[in-house]
Amino acid sequence: MAKPSGEVEVPNKQVILKHHVVDGIPQESDMELRLTTITLKAPSGSASILLKNLYLSCDPYMRLRMRHIQGSYADSFVPGEVLYGYGVSRVVDSDHPDYKIGDLVWGITKWEEYSLIKPPWQLFKIEDTDVPLSYYTGILGMPGMTAYVGFHGICSPKEGDKVFVSAASGAVGQLVGQFAKLLGCYVVGSAGSNDKVELLKTKFGFDDAFNYKGEESIDAALKRYFPEGIDIYFENVGGKTLDAVLANMKVHGRIAACGMISQYNLREPEGVHNLMLLIAKRIRFEGFIVFDHYDKYPEFLKKVLGPIKEGKIIYLEDIAEGLESAPAALVGLFYGRNVGKQLVRLSTD
Amino acid sequence: MAKPSGEVEVPNKQVILKHHVVDGIPQESDMELRLTTITLKAPSGSASILLKNLYLSCDPYMRLRMRHIQGSYADSFVPGEVLYGYGVSRVVDSDHPDYKIGDLVWGITKWEEYSLIKPPWQLFKIEDTDVPLSYYTGILGMPGMTAYVGFHGICSPKEGDKVFVSAASGAVGQLVGQFAKLLGCYVVGSAGSNDKVELLKTKFGFDDAFNYKGEESIDAALKRYFPEGIDIYFENVGGKTLDAVLANMKVHGRIAACGMISQYNLREPEGVHNLMLLIAKRIRFEGFIVFDHYDKYPEFLKKVLGPIKEGKIIYLEDIAEGLESAPAALVGLFYGRNVGKQLVRLSTD
Ligand SMILES: NC(=O)c1ccc[n+]([C@@H]2O[C@H](COP(=O)([O-])OP(=O)(O)OC[C@H]3O[C@@H](n4cnc5c(N)ncnc54)[C@H](OP(=O)(O)O)[C@@H]3O)[C@@H](O)[C@H]2O)c1
Ligand SMILES: NC(=O)c1ccc[n+]([C@@H]2O[C@H](COP(=O)([O-])OP(=O)(O)OC[C@H]3O[C@@H](n4cnc5c(N)ncnc54)[C@H](OP(=O)(O)O)[C@@H]3O)[C@@H](O)[C@H]2O)c1
Repeated sequence: MAKPSGEVEVPNKQVILKHHVVDGIPQESDMELRLTTITLKAPSGSASILLKNLYLSCDPYMRLRMRHIQGSYADSFVPGEVLYGYGVSRVVDSDHPDYKIGDLVWGITKWEEYSLIKPPWQLFKIEDTDVPLSYYTGILGMPGMTAYVGFHGICSPKEGDKVFVSAASGAVGQLVGQFAKLLGCYVVGSAGSNDKVELLKTKFGFDDAFNYKGEESIDAALKRYFPEGIDIYFENVGGKTLDAVLANMKVHGRIAACGMISQYNLREPEGVHNLMLLIAKRIRFEGFIVFDHYDKYPEFLKKVLGPIKEGKIIYLEDIAEGLESAPAALVGLFYGRNVGKQLVRLSTD
Repeated sequence: MAKPSGEVEVPNKQVILKHHVVDGIPQESDMELRLTTITLKAPSGSASILLKNLYLSCDPYMRLRMRHIQGSYADSFVPGEVLYGYGVSRVVDSDHPDYKIGDLVWGITKWEEYSLIKPPWQLFKIEDTDVPLSYYTGILGMPGMTAYVGFHGICSPKEGDKVFVSAASGAVGQLVGQFAKLLGCYVVGSAGSNDKVELLKTKFGFDDAFNYKGEESIDAALKRYFPEGIDIYFENVGGKTLDAVLANMKVHGRIAACGMISQYNLREPEGVHNLMLLIAKRIRFEGFIVFDHYDKYPEFLKKVLGPIKEGKIIYLEDIAEGLESAPAALVGLFYGRNVGKQLVRLSTD
C-alpha cells in the first residue's frame, strides 16, 4: 500500500517467542528473529507514539512470561508474537500530547527496532542525559528502583546490620550491596564465579563474597561469614539458598523477597523446609514488586544521580550488540553468563 | 530430716519427661508420673516463691521442647525432669517482696502440684477474679495475648478483610476469629471435625468453616470460601495448608506465622512450594512470638475483660481433671481431641 508522503516504511527486526517454555532453561531456539516492516508514523487519532528502541533490558522475570504462571503479576508472552520488556527508546513520532519527537524514554517497549506503543503505557521521560543512556535499563531504571525500594523500603536497614545478598553481582544485587555499604552495614554477597566474587570485593565494596558453586554447603558458608547471624537477606535466588539463609537468620531478621531465579526454570518449585524458623526467629519475609513503588522514582533519582556522577555508586553493565544477540543474552542470565546488568544495544542514535 | 516447726512436707506429684521424642506424635508413655515430696516453704534468703498449681495449660509448643530443635526460642525439656509450662497458681509461701501468700498468678510453672519458683520468672499477677480463674491459661493468658498481638499487631486488619484461620476452634484460633468479626471482617476457619465446624459457625460467629479432614483439596475448599482470595491468613498449621493458602492469597495479603502444628511431629518439616507467590502477590509473611509483646498485656486486659463479662467474647475450654490426666491431654492436642482450650485442673482451692 502506498504511504502518504512523509510516512517512511522501514525494515523492523523483531524477536518472537515461538512457543511456551514449560520447564528447563529457555533456549535461543525458543525464540526467532522475524523481519517485518513498520511505518514510522504514530497514526493520527491513535494517541500512540512511535519509538526507536536504543537499548533493551534482559530481565529474569521475562522467563516467567515464557509460560503460563498461575497467580503471577505478569501475563504470558503470546507465542508467535514479539517479546516485550524494559528498554530505552527515542520518540520518532508522536500522536500524544505528552510526548514529542526526540523525547527519550525508558519503560516497557517491545523487542524490535521500532515500536508503536499505545496507551496505557509504562514509560518515564529521561531528563538527565549526562550519564550513559543505557543506565536507564539498570541503575536508573527498573533494577535500580528494585534495589532501592527493596532494600530501603522492605528491609528496614540500619547501620551495623549484617546483610546477605544473593545473585549479588547482577543488575539488582550490585546496587543492594552498595546501598547497604553506604548505610554502614556489613555486606556479604554470593555469586556464581570467582571473577564475580572478586568484583564484589574489589569493585562494589562488599565486605566479603563467596562463589556458591564452589561451596559444598551454603549453610556452612553463611556460618563462616555470619557467625552471629544475618539481619537482612535480600532474596534473589530462592530454593536451597533460602533454606540455608533461614537457618542463619538472626532473631527479628528481615527478608525482602525480590526474586527466586533458581526456581524460574523448574516445572514445580522446590520445597522450602525451614519456614518454622520464621516463628522462632520472628522474621518478616516480605515480597514486593518494583512497579508498586514507581511513585518514588523522582525521589530515587534525586538520591542517586549525584553519587553516580561522583563515582560513589558504580554500575557494571554487560552489553550485547544488536537485536540478533538478544535471545542469547536473555538465556545467558540463567547460566550466570552476564557479569553485571545484561542489556542489548540496538542503536546509539 | 526433721523440719523446723511451721514447715510442712507434703506429697507432690509431678509429670516427668522420660526421654526426648524425635519424631512422631508423643505418647503418654513418653512421660511418667512421679511421686515426690515438697516442703511448703520458700527458703529464707532464696527470693523464691512457693506455688500451689491450680490449672496447667497444654500448649502445642511443648512438643518442640520434647526434642532438641535447632534455632528455636525454646529450650528442650530435660529427660528425667519435670515438665514446665504455663499455669495458674496460688502463692502459698513467699520469700520475695513482690509476692505475698494468697496472691494468684499466671505464667510459667511446673507440671506438679506445688512448685518452688526462683527468679527470674515469667509471672503475671491476677487482679480480676470475677471471671473463671482457668481463663488465665487461655483467653486471659498466653493464648489470648497470642491471638491479640498476632491478629491486631501482625495482620494489619481492617473492616471487610477476608480472613482465614486454621486450627480455628483451638485456644488461639477461636479468639482470632472473634477479634476479626468484631472488626467487621469476613472470617472462615478450618478445623478437624464436623462438630468443631458447627461450633465455629454457631458459637464463635465465624461466617463459615470447613472440616479440612473431609476435603479432598484444601485449595478447592479455599476457592469455595474465598472466591476473590484471602487478605489475611492466621497461620497455625503450616505445611500443605500453607501452600494452599499461598495459592489463594490476594495481592498485598498478610500472613501471621503463629504456629505450624502439622510440622511439630515430623522429623524433617515438609517443603513449602508456593513461596514465589509472596513476590507475585506482595505478601507479608511475618513470624511472631507472644512473649515479645507482653508489655501490651495491661492494654489487652482492659480491652477484653469487659466484652468477656458481657458475653460479647466467648471462650471454650476443654478441662481435664487431675495431674494424672495431663500427659493424655497434652498428647491429645496432636490428634485434635481438644475442643477449645485444653487445660488441666489440679485443684480449685
Ligand atoms: N520484585 C521485583 O520487582 C524485581 C525486579 C527486578 C528483579 N527482580 C528479581 O531480582 C533477581 C535479580 O535480578 P537481576 O535483574 O539483578 O538479574 P541478574 O542478577 O543481573 O542476573 C541473574 C543472575 O542470577 C544468577 N542465577 C541464575 N540462575 C541461578 C540459580 N539457579 N541459582 C542461583 N543464582 C542464579 C546468575 O548469577 P550467578 O553467576 O551469581 O549465578 C545470573 O547472572 C531475580 O530473581 C529477578 O527476578 C525482582
Ligand atoms: N507464636 C506464638 O507465640 C504462639 C503462642 C501460642 C500458640 N502458638 C501456636 O498456635 C497454634 C495453635 O495453638 P493453640 O494453643 O490454639 O492450640 P489448639 O488449636 O488449641 O490445639 C491444637 C489444635 O491443632 C490442630 N491440629 C493438630 N495437629 C494438626 C495437624 N497435623 N494439621 C492440622 N491441624 C492440626 C487440632 O485441631 P483440629 O481438630 O482442628 O485439627 C488441635 O486441636 C499452634 O501452632 C501453636 O504452636 C503460637
